[in-house]
Amino acid sequence: MSLIVQKFGGTSVGDAEKIMNVARIIADTHDQGHQVVTVVSAMGHSTDALVDLAKKITDNPTGREYDALLATGEMVSVALLSMALNSLGYKAVGLNGAQAGILTEDLFNRARILEIDTNGIKKALSEGNIIIVTGFQGINSLGEITTLGRGGSDTSAVALAAALEAERCDIYTDVRGVYSTDPRIVPEAVKMPRIAYIEMLELARVGAQVLHPRAVETARQGNVAVCVRSTFDLKDSGTMVLGIEAMDKDRRVAGIACDESQARLALTGVPDQPGIAAEVFGTLANHNISVDMIIQSLSESDVPGGKPTNDIAFTVSETDLHDAVTVLEQVKQKIGAKQVLVDTDIAKVSIVGAGMIDRPGIAADMFRALAEGKINIKMISTSEIKISCLVDKTAAKDAVRTIHGRFFADSGLSVTQATVNEKLGY
Amino acid sequence: MSLIVQKFGGTSVGDAEKIMNVARIIADTHDQGHQVVTVVSAMGHSTDALVDLAKKITDNPTGREYDALLATGEMVSVALLSMALNSLGYKAVGLNGAQAGILTEDLFNRARILEIDTNGIKKALSEGNIIIVTGFQGINSLGEITTLGRGGSDTSAVALAAALEAERCDIYTDVRGVYSTDPRIVPEAVKMPRIAYIEMLELARVGAQVLHPRAVETARQGNVAVCVRSTFDLKDSGTMVLGIEAMDKDRRVAGIACDESQARLALTGVPDQPGIAAEVFGTLANHNISVDMIIQSLSESDVPGGKPTNDIAFTVSETDLHDAVTVLEQVKQKIGAKQVLVDTDIAKVSIVGAGMIDRPGIAADMFRALAEGKINIKMISTSEIKISCLVDKTAAKDAVRTIHGRFFADSGLSVTQATVNEKLGY
Repeated sequence: MSLIVQKFGGTSVGDAEKIMNVARIIADTHDQGHQVVTVVSAMGHSTDALVDLAKKITDNPTGREYDALLATGEMVSVALLSMALNSLGYKAVGLNGAQAGILTEDLFNRARILEIDTNGIKKALSEGNIIIVTGFQGINSLGEITTLGRGGSDTSAVALAAALEAERCDIYTDVRGVYSTDPRIVPEAVKMPRIAYIEMLELARVGAQVLHPRAVETARQGNVAVCVRSTFDLKDSGTMVLGIEAMDKDRRVAGIACDESQARLALTGVPDQPGIAAEVFGTLANHNISVDMIIQSLSESDVPGGKPTNDIAFTVSETDLHDAVTVLEQVKQKIGAKQVLVDTDIAKVSIVGAGMIDRPGIAADMFRALAEGKINIKMISTSEIKISCLVDKTAAKDAVRTIHGRFFADSGLSVTQATVNEKLGY
Repeated sequence: MSLIVQKFGGTSVGDAEKIMNVARIIADTHDQGHQVVTVVSAMGHSTDALVDLAKKITDNPTGREYDALLATGEMVSVALLSMALNSLGYKAVGLNGAQAGILTEDLFNRARILEIDTNGIKKALSEGNIIIVTGFQGINSLGEITTLGRGGSDTSAVALAAALEAERCDIYTDVRGVYSTDPRIVPEAVKMPRIAYIEMLELARVGAQVLHPRAVETARQGNVAVCVRSTFDLKDSGTMVLGIEAMDKDRRVAGIACDESQARLALTGVPDQPGIAAEVFGTLANHNISVDMIIQSLSESDVPGGKPTNDIAFTVSETDLHDAVTVLEQVKQKIGAKQVLVDTDIAKVSIVGAGMIDRPGIAADMFRALAEGKINIKMISTSEIKISCLVDKTAAKDAVRTIHGRFFADSGLSVTQATVNEKLGY
């Protein structure tokens, strides 16, 4: 008998009626002859309500107590969903993180799963039960409740699927799968039947928010076949996230993402000496500021006959901008740089595709598309499977559209994908 | 260093402001040099909200899942209260039933505590922590979450006080202590400085609802000094619930209670044969109907020269009345009794006092008080420390007043109690 792990997000269990709907989906899977382990998030906005309660008590809650508080949200939905299945005549048992044997690091708010003791779940499965497990939470070596941070329920589901050697991990959500780009920007966006783990990782990091990178990484390590699909349209088969070997060989680009939440910082007139970059980025790291794209360029000295200097430009998340500027001003004094420049009017547009490995010309195609759209490129960075261009924020949506047109309408799209021309419900 | 166990009910932690108030009470106790273990109920009406959620899913929730659901209410208040103490600069750790080592029967909705493994709590105390524990819940031998039923948080607190050999268990609530009778009926009701466990048990069973009988019984078995006091008036020292040896020797009556929720049933013309009473009350017990007062009286036969017959009268809770009548009609047929009579216009007025043991004349005093008030007595029952009279429901409040006047104003009241003439806030 094959085992399916399923995960339902907060929107899918937002009220009693939706919980009954989810119970019926689980029951159907069970009736098809599968063993079922279902991971569930907290109902709708109930986690936000708990966060608000905590805020009324203190602005700086202790991590241990904050996690114990937030974890109750999933416990409620697990109990209700198990009840719902029982009321439909199915044997179902609900388990919280501790009962499900999900052992995490001794860290709060964003602990990683270390290990899952699956004995309890396997025993309950062998007795014919459907298992309902709280997402987003585990227990540490001291028996304290921990939470896994953003995207935690996805990670719980994928980690359980890996530990139980499940046939598949179905992530039920409110979209129909992974699209070639955001359908709100490009109505012609196509739903991908398949996408590789590493493509999904890059897409997630540049702004596509269907699956959290940690969940994708867990799937990649455990080689778990993940299916992203809609709770509200069961006929749609969704998108399978798989190893790169299962991808279409002739597909060059998997998806296009746009991230408008970054800001560009530049430090000009930096002395051309060894150790300067380490000083700049080491200091930023010490202040817990993540840096994304980095460009260093050599320029002539301002002073005739003087030494040449560098300009160092990089992007940070807008939420880190204020801190980053403060830190950079100090670094500027210390290393004797000229000035700190800030540009918040930017967006990062990226194409991602495992197919671009060993296939030249894709970057050039992207730049050509932008040029035809009369969109200026401010910075470029590349990785094995990703090319990102920084453009003006006002040009971002046009950039996505013009690049999408080139890769998905004219060329790189496989026949399967070309015939799927589906739009999201919103 | 002495250890104090405290318990705060749902009203005391109804919102963030009240939680901060409770945190300050706990902090004060800690500052006075005590170790503190605090048991807390779910916030305000949050348990009702969880019950409503479950009702939207099913009318017959499975006990296991229902308990897991309800237990989240206390987990929320424990996390928030611990956070509040941490924000005030105190070291506090919250523990749920499982983490606190509270092992219960393998029974849901109303499990009894079997044992408390105090090692975790003792270790955390020895590290200087204040311990906050979820009331109302425990864990069974299978690691499943169980709840203790009504009055569960009081029982959790008293059981913890017994297991930890605490100096005292303070039950903070929204009244100032245990009164000689209901101050809403008798404005002259006095707050008792002390009351014995067995008096409290009898008072609780006849309608005084300050402490649940199970909590009182747990205190009696563990000889725990329990103090019932107000969260909202800390100057008031409340009522101590103690062993009978700590009571005033000259106090005859501890309190007067009135129960208006009973109904009287009578079976007339019952043949005077052995085994009939067993048949009647055995059948009622088989239908899970609890019987309170029982009177059997011999009457002449209706038929001249016929055998004498009995009348059997007893009281049941009004909620059981319908079932009891159905059962009695069947029993009537079977044993050949004459008729079933029902009287719902009754109330049971009781006086309770360990002082009445070996002291005659108290019953006569009670009957005399009722006679002077021109109140007719319909039934009488007595135990070692309790005398109950059934009266017309319309006369119930007058009965309480006239009895209170006799025992607390004219005679049996000790000097300490006579000077306390305090009224409840409502």
